[in-house]
Amino acid sequence: MITGIVETCDAAQIRRCIADRNRAICAKDLDQIMSSYAPDVIFFDVKPPFQTQGVDAVRQIWERCLLYLPDSFQIEVRDFEITVIGDLAIAHGFFRLTDMATDDAPIHSAIQAWKCGTVGYQRYQGEWKITHEHASIPFHPEPNWAPMQVPK
Amino acid sequence: MITGIVETCDAAQIRRCIADRNRAICAKDLDQIMSSYAPDVIFFDVKPPFQTQGVDAVRQIWERCLLYLPDSFQIEVRDFEITVIGDLAIAHGFFRLTDMATDDAPIHSAIQAWKCGTVGYQRYQGEWKITHEHASIPFHPEPNWAPMQVPK
Repeated sequence: MITGIVETCDAAQIRRCIADRNRAICAKDLDQIMSSYAPDVIFFDVKPPFQTQGVDAVRQIWERCLLYLPDSFQIEVRDFEITVIGDLAIAHGFFRLTDMATDDAPIHSAIQAWKCGTVGYQRYQGEWKITHEHASIPFHPEPNWAPMQVPK
Repeated sequence: MITGIVETCDAAQIRRCIADRNRAICAKDLDQIMSSYAPDVIFFDVKPPFQTQGVDAVRQIWERCLLYLPDSFQIEVRDFEITVIGDLAIAHGFFRLTDMATDDAPIHSAIQAWKCGTVGYQRYQGEWKITHEHASIPFHPEPNWAPMQVPK
């Protein structure tokens, strides 16, 4: 079945996009990281704000994020499943930072934690770009936990 | 453009699916809630575990969840965007419980909080079913926050 073969090739392309993006994060190569996004991406991050819209705003998020990452590290991914139909794809699985430089300042435990990731891709002119990203850490609610407001 | 009209109809169908599912949750109608899922759904919830696979396991999650919800409530959704290509769709936005019965026992603040939601739909025999769902609450990391392990 031609369709089946095409789907498999597309899924392999998405998997390469994920690996390329993770290499760019490990290299702290901001331009390379940003090249994975569509211009109108909507990003739901682990921490506030609730959403960040557009590649320029997401670039600012990454710029700040890279300052908090250790000097050297790897990214481990697990259970990533990819569904592709036509020019739309959904990938989801888990990821965490590993092999962090031990001589760095103490690393916040949230940086090391396993995170859930869901990524929506669309193909533009033959290239897969991230149109939506949702990263999170499941939490145990505490009695004194206070919810945040969605900004106006 | 026929394509544009079809996409718009599909997006409207997905929006109806979301509304129908929310009505089923408010009615605590477990069978109706479960009818929105594909058999092999993968669910990333706000709280542990990291993932729940398959409609039977997701049913158990919902069965427990309904016990904690107030007697009466509504679900408010905001900023839901839907992308459909062919038989695959991604919807994402925010949701929270509102209009909760005031004579219920004290309601945990996590239940009232705005949540991020990303939902992947696939069309099977003309019907849209949820194949992937990711709900989360962004969090402010605290110094004593401890990460959870992904179960083996």
